[in-house]
Amino acid sequence: MELDLRFNKNASETLQEQAFEQIRSHILSGRLRPGMSLPPTRQLAEQLNISRNTISLAYDRLAAEGYIESRGRAGTFVSRALPDESLSADVRSGSTNGPKLDLPSPLLCFSGHPPSVTRPDVANPIIDFWIGRSDPDSFPVDTWRRLLLRKISAAGPNLTEYGDPAGLSDLRIALASHLGRTRGMLVSPEQIIVTSGSQDGLNLICRLLNTQHHPFFIENPCYQGAAFLFRSMGASLHPIPVDQNGFVVEMLPRDTGGVVFVTPSHQYPTGTTLSLERRLQLLKWANDTNSIIIEDDYDCHFRYDGRPVTALAGLDNGQRVFYLGTFSKSLGAGLRVGFAVVPQGLADPARIVKSQMNHGQAWLEQAVLAEFIESGLYDRHLRRARKLYKSRRDCLLASLGRYFGSTEITGAEAGLHVVWRLPPGSPDARVVQQRARLRGVGVYGLDSGAAYDFDGTSNRDSLVLGYSSIQEKSIETAICRLHELLHDMRREFTPYAVFPRQQSA
Amino acid sequence: MELDLRFNKNASETLQEQAFEQIRSHILSGRLRPGMSLPPTRQLAEQLNISRNTISLAYDRLAAEGYIESRGRAGTFVSRALPDESLSADVRSGSTNGPKLDLPSPLLCFSGHPPSVTRPDVANPIIDFWIGRSDPDSFPVDTWRRLLLRKISAAGPNLTEYGDPAGLSDLRIALASHLGRTRGMLVSPEQIIVTSGSQDGLNLICRLLNTQHHPFFIENPCYQGAAFLFRSMGASLHPIPVDQNGFVVEMLPRDTGGVVFVTPSHQYPTGTTLSLERRLQLLKWANDTNSIIIEDDYDCHFRYDGRPVTALAGLDNGQRVFYLGTFSKSLGAGLRVGFAVVPQGLADPARIVKSQMNHGQAWLEQAVLAEFIESGLYDRHLRRARKLYKSRRDCLLASLGRYFGSTEITGAEAGLHVVWRLPPGSPDARVVQQRARLRGVGVYGLDSGAAYDFDGTSNRDSLVLGYSSIQEKSIETAICRLHELLHDMRREFTPYAVFPRQQSA
Repeated sequence: MELDLRFNKNASETLQEQAFEQIRSHILSGRLRPGMSLPPTRQLAEQLNISRNTISLAYDRLAAEGYIESRGRAGTFVSRALPDESLSADVRSGSTNGPKLDLPSPLLCFSGHPPSVTRPDVANPIIDFWIGRSDPDSFPVDTWRRLLLRKISAAGPNLTEYGDPAGLSDLRIALASHLGRTRGMLVSPEQIIVTSGSQDGLNLICRLLNTQHHPFFIENPCYQGAAFLFRSMGASLHPIPVDQNGFVVEMLPRDTGGVVFVTPSHQYPTGTTLSLERRLQLLKWANDTNSIIIEDDYDCHFRYDGRPVTALAGLDNGQRVFYLGTFSKSLGAGLRVGFAVVPQGLADPARIVKSQMNHGQAWLEQAVLAEFIESGLYDRHLRRARKLYKSRRDCLLASLGRYFGSTEITGAEAGLHVVWRLPPGSPDARVVQQRARLRGVGVYGLDSGAAYDFDGTSNRDSLVLGYSSIQEKSIETAICRLHELLHDMRREFTPYAVFPRQQSA
Repeated sequence: MELDLRFNKNASETLQEQAFEQIRSHILSGRLRPGMSLPPTRQLAEQLNISRNTISLAYDRLAAEGYIESRGRAGTFVSRALPDESLSADVRSGSTNGPKLDLPSPLLCFSGHPPSVTRPDVANPIIDFWIGRSDPDSFPVDTWRRLLLRKISAAGPNLTEYGDPAGLSDLRIALASHLGRTRGMLVSPEQIIVTSGSQDGLNLICRLLNTQHHPFFIENPCYQGAAFLFRSMGASLHPIPVDQNGFVVEMLPRDTGGVVFVTPSHQYPTGTTLSLERRLQLLKWANDTNSIIIEDDYDCHFRYDGRPVTALAGLDNGQRVFYLGTFSKSLGAGLRVGFAVVPQGLADPARIVKSQMNHGQAWLEQAVLAEFIESGLYDRHLRRARKLYKSRRDCLLASLGRYFGSTEITGAEAGLHVVWRLPPGSPDARVVQQRARLRGVGVYGLDSGAAYDFDGTSNRDSLVLGYSSIQEKSIETAICRLHELLHDMRREFTPYAVFPRQQSA
């Protein structure tokens, strides 16, 4: 028989690879059927005008992988062991229609701009109030490089061996001490599970809890990453409103326990701080109803007036609060390091669940971070960042005051963003978001800004403004542009009421 | 009133911190009740013989956190806003008795020695045949350092901003090309989701699939990390036997589809390679029954006689095979990088599920790895490692042959471990494991070695021997010691049958 092989001498694959691929393809497609003979290498080489060695090597590989078999002097044949029926036509023609998949709802979270919004154009960057970003210019890159070099030089088998899935021991020790100093938490290193960030930690907790069998009480509005995860795990969600003192604990049912998810330091998205009174009420309720609390402390280190309030996990003393921390806001999201603190007695189960999920984070990042914390460099970094972000917050508040007069702002005393209620008579926040982008300013309605509102009411009149990675001059420019935009939009949307004369011109 | 405060001048906390903590503790324990007055700062400072400023600062912090309130000239009082009832006694006395937790079964996997086995003593190291380890001395540490420095110098905002949860684009492009070259897979970068290793990828796939509604067909014996994960997700497991050609496809039901989990390159633990014939049968079965295949290709790069066999995902052409890859065996487990390849059309859902699980891996590792692959350094590393591991395998086989004569070994043609059936008359593998350790040799029965046997039959007579990180001289020494051990144990266990004379001495 003759084999129809075509070679492309300019292709990146060698002639031998091309021969292998084409013969294999003939076999899989059924053109060469089991038991059929192949031409001798010499004959095929002559026919194709290429080296016999090329064909021999291709045949060798086909034989090694089981596609063809040599029967000595009888020649070379397509393996009889292969299924006689052609396979590939079936497999390759149809689209995937396997078992029904659980396709998830789209998820917005800190890790991405909403899909409808294009990424910033590098040549013409926008001033972007995207949320939860640490300042790129403040990353301690020289220190980090120095520590990286030191650690990799002494790495030994740490680069090749598996570590503890619960995290590097040095890092957990450093974290336990840091949490004691800064969050009032008395925890042992064993209670700390290093994760790739809060979301990974939240998954860990959900898998420890029996998500389908307890009601989940969650802030309204809340962080999308939490709400969508709980929902995907089959939890029943019960929204609890948030006011100026945070989560309204009184709205919890008196007699039913469950799991509570809260962001007490700086409620996401409203930015309120859960008052001490409410914290103690919440702990008492949890105790009375035998409930579990998940405390997501995502940007706890940035409180501009006074010190951070002691964490729920510090007041509870390690009994029924699961605590989530992250370095994504305080240092850099590109490091992908966070941690969960589990109640005393759950350290071993948590470690086992972690090893079912994944075998932990990169050794190098953990080793560098451990020394960064232990040496006091992290505390110094936090002090500097706090000062910088406070200036930017002050600048944002001053700019909003200058251009818009008295404004309704929440969440300014802490964190990396505020929520600004648009002035009365402004268009829908989602329209402002779209139009601002055309003028080079990135602002986000609550639903675009990784927040979820169970009622959908707060989405339309407020913007989240993340200010931590924008320089003061740009903040001023952006607020000025927003003022112009709202002025122009008001003309456009209410032509006869506010500016009747200009409209007729 | 007088406050009972005790200071430790040698403690690491400042006097101010100690004062804060102790007063806070009095309030939380109910000794200081809401509305009670606190002594004036001057009086307390005199009483305690410390600076008044120290007490003032502690009071300021207590007030800032809401524990106490100043009422001007009337003095300072415990906040009335706090719940009157003492909280902490309840919270701190009881042990955790929250909602019932789903406590998992212990899990053994590549990431850890079994808990019953102590870690190697550094001063007196054992020769350890633990499985799945890449050679520490072969890690390209100088190249890695150079690439780390290059990447961090050009990091820009990559250290502080969130990246794509599906992984760094450069790495996914490099991987797509590498998979085409080495595994015969035609995949687009969008189909690749970077993970922290195979286990993370397996979780991703389980969450895309409706695990509770399909039967899971799994190799028997199999990898514990997979079996225990599937079980924890509520899947019903159906073990399918493994013979010398791998997974026995004919044992799958003719008429029922589901999800199949296989390790075709080097079955874990037996080490057999799934024959091409079976591969095509399996794909045809999957097509006929509308099933999904999960292919875990954990140590595919190490085939010592001939080239690696084309992956199932390469034969399937991206329709119904989910593929799992990892750098843990080929480069180093401390990097924590692996990947999943999902069928065409599932790239977007997979990215969304990934962002629900976690927001991806560290930027630096991904960036370095992308360049390492793209520049051809990874291919060169693999060639060197393959040569090294082949020598070690040859040495192991030769040593076993020399000391034990004809031996039953499976899995030698590929991978990083073999399974050795103990000579007839040997004690239980678990006893050998314990006793060998006392003689400085780490060997593992199948159930200790991250394998799971549904019948429990293969656990007792075989050991897994991971040879990739042990130097040849040590391999010889270890096998010699094992020979002595088995000789001695035979004397001990069958005193009159084999060595009746020595026993009486």
